[in-house]
Amino acid sequence: MKSVDLNSDLGESFGAYTIGNDENVLEFISSANIACGYHAGDHNVMMKTVKLAHSLGVGIGAHPGFPDLGGFGRRDMNLSPDEVFNLVAYQVGAIQGIANVHQARVQHVKPHGALYNRAAKDYPIAKAIASAIYSVNPDLVLYGLAGSELVRAGKEVGLTVAEEVFADRTYQPDGTLTPRSEPNAMIHDADTAVKRVIRMVTEQKVTAVDGQDISINADTICVHGDEPEALRFVQQLRRRLEEEGIHIESAGVKGNE
Amino acid sequence: MKSVDLNSDLGESFGAYTIGNDENVLEFISSANIACGYHAGDHNVMMKTVKLAHSLGVGIGAHPGFPDLGGFGRRDMNLSPDEVFNLVAYQVGAIQGIANVHQARVQHVKPHGALYNRAAKDYPIAKAIASAIYSVNPDLVLYGLAGSELVRAGKEVGLTVAEEVFADRTYQPDGTLTPRSEPNAMIHDADTAVKRVIRMVTEQKVTAVDGQDISINADTICVHGDEPEALRFVQQLRRRLEEEGIHIESAGVKGNE
Amino acid sequence: MKSVDLNSDLGESFGAYTIGNDENVLEFISSANIACGYHAGDHNVMMKTVKLAHSLGVGIGAHPGFPDLGGFGRRDMNLSPDEVFNLVAYQVGAIQGIANVHQARVQHVKPHGALYNRAAKDYPIAKAIASAIYSVNPDLVLYGLAGSELVRAGKEVGLTVAEEVFADRTYQPDGTLTPRSEPNAMIHDADTAVKRVIRMVTEQKVTAVDGQDISINADTICVHGDEPEALRFVQQLRRRLEEEGIHIESAGVKGNE
Amino acid sequence: MKSVDLNSDLGESFGAYTIGNDENVLEFISSANIACGYHAGDHNVMMKTVKLAHSLGVGIGAHPGFPDLGGFGRRDMNLSPDEVFNLVAYQVGAIQGIANVHQARVQHVKPHGALYNRAAKDYPIAKAIASAIYSVNPDLVLYGLAGSELVRAGKEVGLTVAEEVFADRTYQPDGTLTPRSEPNAMIHDADTAVKRVIRMVTEQKVTAVDGQDISINADTICVHGDEPEALRFVQQLRRRLEEEGIHIESAGVKGNE
Repeated sequence: MKSVDLNSDLGESFGAYTIGNDENVLEFISSANIACGYHAGDHNVMMKTVKLAHSLGVGIGAHPGFPDLGGFGRRDMNLSPDEVFNLVAYQVGAIQGIANVHQARVQHVKPHGALYNRAAKDYPIAKAIASAIYSVNPDLVLYGLAGSELVRAGKEVGLTVAEEVFADRTYQPDGTLTPRSEPNAMIHDADTAVKRVIRMVTEQKVTAVDGQDISINADTICVHGDEPEALRFVQQLRRRLEEEGIHIESAGVKGNE
Repeated sequence: MKSVDLNSDLGESFGAYTIGNDENVLEFISSANIACGYHAGDHNVMMKTVKLAHSLGVGIGAHPGFPDLGGFGRRDMNLSPDEVFNLVAYQVGAIQGIANVHQARVQHVKPHGALYNRAAKDYPIAKAIASAIYSVNPDLVLYGLAGSELVRAGKEVGLTVAEEVFADRTYQPDGTLTPRSEPNAMIHDADTAVKRVIRMVTEQKVTAVDGQDISINADTICVHGDEPEALRFVQQLRRRLEEEGIHIESAGVKGNE
Repeated sequence: MKSVDLNSDLGESFGAYTIGNDENVLEFISSANIACGYHAGDHNVMMKTVKLAHSLGVGIGAHPGFPDLGGFGRRDMNLSPDEVFNLVAYQVGAIQGIANVHQARVQHVKPHGALYNRAAKDYPIAKAIASAIYSVNPDLVLYGLAGSELVRAGKEVGLTVAEEVFADRTYQPDGTLTPRSEPNAMIHDADTAVKRVIRMVTEQKVTAVDGQDISINADTICVHGDEPEALRFVQQLRRRLEEEGIHIESAGVKGNE
Repeated sequence: MKSVDLNSDLGESFGAYTIGNDENVLEFISSANIACGYHAGDHNVMMKTVKLAHSLGVGIGAHPGFPDLGGFGRRDMNLSPDEVFNLVAYQVGAIQGIANVHQARVQHVKPHGALYNRAAKDYPIAKAIASAIYSVNPDLVLYGLAGSELVRAGKEVGLTVAEEVFADRTYQPDGTLTPRSEPNAMIHDADTAVKRVIRMVTEQKVTAVDGQDISINADTICVHGDEPEALRFVQQLRRRLEEEGIHIESAGVKGNE
């Protein structure tokens, strides 16, 4: 039976500041990428979010980012691979400490924002992330953009890897995402988006912007729940996947033994 | 055979800023309390310091503090016990992540600065610290001021506890440290300080400021290596303890099995 | 003609995080206390908020707080008077820099949260705040709790002072606010709150919790606009004050010449 | 009579962390670029450094940087021109607040580290910096790399500009600095460095790495005092310049009237 993972970025509130709609989106997803206090989140938010995800049976993942709370980790920073290695080890360790409190297990790691984007194309940074994760805990599953340098680096160091696709984005003939600056970068029609995801999961194919089909591995799908419309899309996507006989399950359970 | 631990606060540099004399003091101590990025230290400094301590066979400990880099964790902050629980779990987890990279084991936890002082007298804060440590890893040894609320809380939750004494401080008849604001708070003569430590370790006694002997458990002695004179004192103290047949060994090795 | 000021804390968003309802509340108030990047706010939020307040003719004030973004400046921190002096000078200068960009004038300063509360009772802290403000710009008006140490210190150093009252809080016979921990601390009935404010403004009297009337100076009234109900209260309060013939005007315009 | 400015980056300590040798280098320079709390420095350090520079008659300048204490502002961050505008206005305002306390005047602004380097080549960023400075205070003098985009932008917005040269760096035929990654980037011989500076000041010429002479404006020379050798070089440079009849004077005094 086919299965796929629905993952979402959670635990991004900070101090008195609230972002997101964690309680609602947790009902529909199988993996939570939880911010670790560098670009968002703090020890209190992490404790609460890990507890909630664990109680709902949602896979717990670290979501490490650049040390840039003011920019929410979305701004590229020129860090060395060594420093990226160190900050990933720190953040993954921190959430493991929090998870221990709830007898929960951190299953996966997905880099955040600008770090994710760098890791998709910049091999030394990708290698630093993958190596850090493996060094901290080789059973962790690495989530990275399908076909990216991060996926390649993860496999090289011996991690189980989950390739991630985006329901609302278009793809270039070479398998990369169309940059958001392009007019055709986004898919706005929910029904089209759902059909593309189903095909990616069942046939490992997606139609690129030039009309040709390309191969893609869709182990996990990134979804958002901040806005009411986004939340409705997640519900619809989950229902349609289940109607197709596709099992929704965290890719994090497939880690090394 | 008698044994005692010599512990020191290390890894307190941050970014481009250097504090301390870690490489030299590590030669003479048995336990390193390593800052975890809240009051001092960062992921790079932690990685380097854990590696160095591990390579020298010095016991590795977490040194969690208040989230106050600007104040070096020395200023009291009015945090709730719940928040203290969470920030201790976070920081202990973070250094465990770093230690995993070096196949090293974090053995002990000693709170830093204002958090240490609060935990000595404020039972709910002490209990929050001890509970967080136990929840993250019950094998960790808790270092706290001899006779303090933190020591009591640690025992209550089931942690192995190491009681800490200070070579250069005087004690009140009730076993508390004489506040630094008092003229007789410090012991400036190295020879006197050494003799008092030896007696604390061998007889579990120290003479309080009023001249009477009081009982004290000296499992671990806090030393500093920042200044040349402080470093010479550590060397002298270690040599004299060894001449007395006292074995220098990390109290962290005595954690739960 | 009687006049009074309605002030509110604004510009408390940070990076990707939004707090408050600044655009709506600005329509009804006469003075904006704008966060300066220590406990909330950042350079982008300040620039936007100063511009908006200035365009609406609302008085611009600095709202300096403790350096504690994680705690939103609500947690007491044990800072020295010297450090408080310095951080007030820094934050007031920063918002003056931002205001210059819009050819706007910073008129007043109101400390935030835990700093405000400390300054109400702790004379050395109050004196440090007042002295810093006077040193940076003696024309600034200091907003402080009516009858507090901060008001006293402000007058001593030569600042124009605006005494602040709270519409939704009860008062003790000695003129201090009833602590929030007490059951009768809050006034929940909007009509009662409005009547008390009108009396404070027109008669300089308020009925304390023991039933006796006490004297109070109500130069400025603290209001909130975050929640719809709070915003409706501000509208109602403003309308009722104007119906009583009380002019709504920033106390900041009364600064030294 | 010829004159030139010797400027140095100061006030880079932070909290318990000390960097630099401010007291000694202040004896030999004419302009101090004082960190403003984003990449280094804090309100306490700024207060102390401004006071000291003012008492010695050294020109006071703002030294704004990226919001990256962990990286000392040396790492490039992908900030928008709008955000750069805002953070420059904030930091310049902050130090003006501090300077007011000492009845001192902030005379110049020199961006720090990665922001300085970006501003040398990236016109929108250069324009944002120059515009922010002009908006906060049009009398401020902008210090930028000789011949850079920042110098161009400063002139465009109407600021007085001081072109900066480096005694210990070599120049490309196009007037840019040889990147540090190149083997011939640095000039290690003090005597050679001094002679090159004197020629830059007196003839507006420097010999590029390919042997040809290029034109350069040397209004201000960047010097360092952290290391004993660096400090000796500053002394030597100052003495030799004075022997040549060149007056040492802050370029900040030449601001708009």
